Amino acid sequence: MNVITLTTDFGSTDHETGVLKGVIWKIAPRVKIADLSHDISPYDIMEAALLFWRVAPYFPDGTIHVAVIDPGVGTSRRAMAAHIDTQYFVGPDNGIFSLLQHEAEQNARPINFIQLDEPKYWLPDISNVFHGRDIFAPVAAHLATGVPFNSLGSAIKDPVIIKIPNPVSTQKGWKGQVIHIDHFGNLSTNINRSHLGESKEVLIKIKGVEITGLVSTFGERSNGTLIALIDSSGSLAISVVNGAAAKLLNSSIGDPVEIQLIQ
Amino acid sequence: MNVITLTTDFGSTDHETGVLKGVIWKIAPRVKIADLSHDISPYDIMEAALLFWRVAPYFPDGTIHVAVIDPGVGTSRRAMAAHIDTQYFVGPDNGIFSLLQHEAEQNARPINFIQLDEPKYWLPDISNVFHGRDIFAPVAAHLATGVPFNSLGSAIKDPVIIKIPNPVSTQKGWKGQVIHIDHFGNLSTNINRSHLGESKEVLIKIKGVEITGLVSTFGERSNGTLIALIDSSGSLAISVVNGAAAKLLNSSIGDPVEIQLIQ
Amino acid sequence: MNVITLTTDFGSTDHETGVLKGVIWKIAPRVKIADLSHDISPYDIMEAALLFWRVAPYFPDGTIHVAVIDPGVGTSRRAMAAHIDTQYFVGPDNGIFSLLQHEAEQNARPINFIQLDEPKYWLPDISNVFHGRDIFAPVAAHLATGVPFNSLGSAIKDPVIIKIPNPVSTQKGWKGQVIHIDHFGNLSTNINRSHLGESKEVLIKIKGVEITGLVSTFGERSNGTLIALIDSSGSLAISVVNGAAAKLLNSSIGDPVEIQLIQ
Repeated sequence: MNVITLTTDFGSTDHETGVLKGVIWKIAPRVKIADLSHDISPYDIMEAALLFWRVAPYFPDGTIHVAVIDPGVGTSRRAMAAHIDTQYFVGPDNGIFSLLQHEAEQNARPINFIQLDEPKYWLPDISNVFHGRDIFAPVAAHLATGVPFNSLGSAIKDPVIIKIPNPVSTQKGWKGQVIHIDHFGNLSTNINRSHLGESKEVLIKIKGVEITGLVSTFGERSNGTLIALIDSSGSLAISVVNGAAAKLLNSSIGDPVEIQLIQ
Repeated sequence: MNVITLTTDFGSTDHETGVLKGVIWKIAPRVKIADLSHDISPYDIMEAALLFWRVAPYFPDGTIHVAVIDPGVGTSRRAMAAHIDTQYFVGPDNGIFSLLQHEAEQNARPINFIQLDEPKYWLPDISNVFHGRDIFAPVAAHLATGVPFNSLGSAIKDPVIIKIPNPVSTQKGWKGQVIHIDHFGNLSTNINRSHLGESKEVLIKIKGVEITGLVSTFGERSNGTLIALIDSSGSLAISVVNGAAAKLLNSSIGDPVEIQLIQ
Repeated sequence: MNVITLTTDFGSTDHETGVLKGVIWKIAPRVKIADLSHDISPYDIMEAALLFWRVAPYFPDGTIHVAVIDPGVGTSRRAMAAHIDTQYFVGPDNGIFSLLQHEAEQNARPINFIQLDEPKYWLPDISNVFHGRDIFAPVAAHLATGVPFNSLGSAIKDPVIIKIPNPVSTQKGWKGQVIHIDHFGNLSTNINRSHLGESKEVLIKIKGVEITGLVSTFGERSNGTLIALIDSSGSLAISVVNGAAAKLLNSSIGDPVEIQLIQ
């Protein structure tokens, strides 16, 4: 029996996340349910897309991921499921799985999308405001019980795509931006290991501050030092040892980051 | 094997929620445990009662829900378990399950209450300050292993009741109040679909502001617009599209809400 | 099949906790995973050590606890696993399990430590910044599938130790300190039941305020009253009935607390 994971912007105080679990277990009583995050910033599709892109590679084949970050619920936005590489994804067609899709396309892995248009796999009453409960959770549960992916809806070829902006090449290196700020205040950027090539010496500029060189771990510098490193997702990150770079630099998502490759 | 759910006001930083899980698995190693919320506002029995009322209908028959919002722990308040319709509830006798009880009574569903007075189903040492660990969790776990409900204590008929205030009928409609503010800042009220009857046109007044008409989903209005709609629990709710109504209106639980039925 | 618990300082917004779950289930698909806390204060080893000390006694034999509060990741600090009494612990060698170790030593329970130096039980690629994913989670999962503890690494005898400071004996009683502040603002101290002996009357001094006597539960005093009691972990605690002592007293971890034994 598969695992079903849940990722939402519902927070931790309300009933919605519990409802999702109940709906799933009523249909698929033996499935394991794992919370990934319920604290995605409200309506922040890119934040959730980044989370799936970073998490999915570590899950077993056949895992079913449910996403309910759904500002367009009840409008013409489609409900969809995706079979990307070896795992399944169920949620709104708003780009939430498109970083994974892009990655799979780059690696020539199999991808299939369907629009969820088979009401027999939904709850009997469909609200206009909570398709997580009424459509995504029951569809994921039916999939977990063995209903074939292609029975859940009709194939589509044009899911909504969102993209991480590509860094721009400069005379001396790359100009990118901050794409995520984590719980510790680390700044993750769209510049990654591949942009550095063979360079051993680099200079990073952000918010008027310069950082010379990359460290390989936090412990190489003393507490409070601003450092740059390749993080565990392979991205260039700006951090403060035992501190919060976002606070020190007063940085936000979208802030420009430049890297100069010196040698 | 049943599911046991946990709902507490213990927050996410301390040891208590982990302790509940350990106690349960020591007695019922095969049971699945699901967190509903550990972020109920401290001592807020009504907030938890609302959560159970909204969550329980979606869980499978036989689910066991444990509640530890327990300001009266160690006093004369009783420890109780309830069998309401097809599910079980274990916690303090402080009204926490009484919205469900009311609903079941309205629908003539079976209800049974017991006072937990059989210490053989408790931990051996009982503190005065953590009955969640010492009584509720072990009782829930024994119930999950097959101990009959009625063996866990003596029948009672007079559990503590708390009620959502009823809206008051006015010349033109209803006067109610805000009963819950969710993570997004949506205001949920005690006015629900049934109060609207066949009315197609309505006027809502809250905090000196008027909202004309109900929308059926968020996407019908542009970002930042104040809207009213019937939410996924069937309640009249006041929201801001991609925003927070509670913040915009500076609203709190208990704030009056009026609805005029025009046609 | 064992339970694996997770305790981290990763918070609830990011991908890391999901990644740990994926890594574990890829290796040990049938294990149950329980979140203890992901909101340990960043890098706060003592806070996590206190949590394990309070939680572990309630878990079944054979439970595997994974800890990722790891400011020294990628430095010379060792990765370790501990077999303390009947349970297993996997994490950095930074003292995070040493309160449990101390307790087991006091009670002459079996203790074994190993340094995790068998890369065949790790992920193939090891980062310098996320050993939770690359080493601790896979080692815990292999242990859950039946790999013998001693195969996971080489025995060590000198794990890093951190200690709760002992209260100091005074003419009239004890001088201790605040060691934890919980979600409700209760202040937990390093003075415990054993320091009180047979005393029935006590006087507690903290932040210039005196509290006379211990209550046995919150309900003995009216809302807002400052009280002292023995909490559910057996520690002297300072609380406010239906309020937050930390806020009322503006208290922090490390604040001195004196207790005078009067009779």
